[in-house]
Amino acid sequence: MNVTVHGRTRHYRTATFDVQGNAVLLIEQRLLPHEFRIVAARDFRQTGRAIQDMIVRGAGAIGATAAYGLAQGARVFRGRDLAKFLPHVERVYQALKAARPTAVDPVNAMNFVRQAMRAGRTVEEQQALALAAAEEFANEDVRHCEAIGRHGAKLIRDGMNVLTHCNAGWLAFVDIGSATAPLYAAQAKGRRFHVYCDETRPRSQGATLTAWELAQQRVSHQVIADNAAGHLMQRGKIDLVIVGSDRTLGRTGEVANKIGTYTKAVLAARHGIPFYVAIPLSSIDWNLKSGFDIPIEERDESEVLGAWGAVEAAAGGVRAARPAGRAYVRVANPSSGALNPGFDVTPAELITGIITPAGILKPRELWARRRELGG
Amino acid sequence: MNVTVHGRTRHYRTATFDVQGNAVLLIEQRLLPHEFRIVAARDFRQTGRAIQDMIVRGAGAIGATAAYGLAQGARVFRGRDLAKFLPHVERVYQALKAARPTAVDPVNAMNFVRQAMRAGRTVEEQQALALAAAEEFANEDVRHCEAIGRHGAKLIRDGMNVLTHCNAGWLAFVDIGSATAPLYAAQAKGRRFHVYCDETRPRSQGATLTAWELAQQRVSHQVIADNAAGHLMQRGKIDLVIVGSDRTLGRTGEVANKIGTYTKAVLAARHGIPFYVAIPLSSIDWNLKSGFDIPIEERDESEVLGAWGAVEAAAGGVRAARPAGRAYVRVANPSSGALNPGFDVTPAELITGIITPAGILKPRELWARRRELGG
Repeated sequence: MNVTVHGRTRHYRTATFDVQGNAVLLIEQRLLPHEFRIVAARDFRQTGRAIQDMIVRGAGAIGATAAYGLAQGARVFRGRDLAKFLPHVERVYQALKAARPTAVDPVNAMNFVRQAMRAGRTVEEQQALALAAAEEFANEDVRHCEAIGRHGAKLIRDGMNVLTHCNAGWLAFVDIGSATAPLYAAQAKGRRFHVYCDETRPRSQGATLTAWELAQQRVSHQVIADNAAGHLMQRGKIDLVIVGSDRTLGRTGEVANKIGTYTKAVLAARHGIPFYVAIPLSSIDWNLKSGFDIPIEERDESEVLGAWGAVEAAAGGVRAARPAGRAYVRVANPSSGALNPGFDVTPAELITGIITPAGILKPRELWARRRELGG
Repeated sequence: MNVTVHGRTRHYRTATFDVQGNAVLLIEQRLLPHEFRIVAARDFRQTGRAIQDMIVRGAGAIGATAAYGLAQGARVFRGRDLAKFLPHVERVYQALKAARPTAVDPVNAMNFVRQAMRAGRTVEEQQALALAAAEEFANEDVRHCEAIGRHGAKLIRDGMNVLTHCNAGWLAFVDIGSATAPLYAAQAKGRRFHVYCDETRPRSQGATLTAWELAQQRVSHQVIADNAAGHLMQRGKIDLVIVGSDRTLGRTGEVANKIGTYTKAVLAARHGIPFYVAIPLSSIDWNLKSGFDIPIEERDESEVLGAWGAVEAAAGGVRAARPAGRAYVRVANPSSGALNPGFDVTPAELITGIITPAGILKPRELWARRRELGG
């Protein structure tokens, strides 16, 4: 999507490949929203570290990054001996896989690349095919998000107020995003609407990443505390909710997503407000039989007990801010601990529809249509 | 309640009066939870400023502070001329009233003191009566909170997990608090339970004040993100919700309280979890006919866009922390704005019971029993 830096607007993807430099170019997401910077991972180990250190995050984005990383690693091999090349590729594969061992997207992406490479009969051919497949993987991610946007844009009418939670935006994919795709597509059609971004404590991805995205795209928006959505719904100020999903169960239509999603679904149901989940097909889990079987990660309590941000005012001996000066402040009582579940599960009955690249489906339709959805 | 400073545990009230020094002694609540300090307001203007600047906050606490402030101001008058004394008292009254013009508690408290003074036939008698009435007002506040605790403690059984929102604790009253009173009373009876403190963004009073209170009282507790309660309820980890109230409508049983309260009530109803509101009788509004008539204050957007806390880690040019060094960090995207409603309204149908000093009532019982409730 477009980013304006020093008054100059340019189109960026979260991950791209510099063929001449054999480098993966990434938006340094840990600096957002306070600073926009592109960093180059110059070998596959740096690419792995970028995934591990969360320079790049989000299902689609780390998938494409791993695909590029595998091609990058394959391309540094010098020689013509396939018997030496293949173990080299395997080492690259394992190194990139180890960067985020619980994520399924890098593995799927790299399998796609490896499968394509098999058609090559020489090292050189396989290297070329790896790069082409990585580009194809990234482009496919973009096409899927475009399709989500095409279907989802129909839900957004002039004058609507739309609530989002967390960031399932283009920063989490290669471009466009899932939950944000209908917004960007509706804006492209000239529709006028307003977005409320849930702050999304404890990591505040709504206030930081989604708000940054919408500001760059000039979509009308405001950040709200996670506590405020219920009140706004009660007063008739929210017409539609669109969120993303980390994992959607193909058998039951249950949706695992960032903590707080379930709360918004309960509130939307009480007020008769449509609640949609936008997903790429790759996030559908066709195996699990119940949302209660989804492991809910308990994250570090420091996320709940404080916040990172740019220092704007200070007291009691802290030095005043510089523009890029960031700090973690402990907000909570110093002697108290926290409980920090990272995700929750929303049952199918609270979900109006699931916006997929293949169209908008009822959550319980997924299983019956699993063939065409890739299940 | 008890506070432990440098290993020494002592009982404190939020506001007390130093008769010899003619000073109002207050807990400097703006420094909590990072620092505990008692400050002395040495004349009624300082007392007014302490209310205005939020050194002291919360209905009961600012009521008692204003009552003490009126006595304090009356006591500095030198002379025996009642015709000069009464206009002096009126000036003190107006100055303290102006400190928080929208709050009803300081006015009610000062009217109570002024009424008591009328029985005095000399300046000296009226001064003595003012002080006695202010002490009586503070003690009455404590007795009401004790009664809330007595009734509410019956709801708390061994092994329960209790959710609270915001701070309706002893820091908001003279002692004990409203929503916290059942917790402290149950603890005094030896019951074992665990409290989840909603962080309560944007001002985080749950993470700061309630967590501090519970830690001082050694009540088992954890802070959670406001987003987490729905998930915990879904997994059977919350048995009871107790919150406070800024204004309860005597006619309808609707409760206005800190933003996010309504959301927790909707979630509790969905899961069949009892939802109680603990209130002093002074917070009942016998006039308003609908919760939609309660003005919802829109507060400054900076509260949503960032957070104040003690600096613990820093990057990009900010100096490392000192123990008492506090800073405001901008968390949200710098070019985004926020919407910040401060309160919401919970309908009677979602409220299991209202814990008053006169017993636990159904929200719709209030009106029928208005005579005994002071309406």
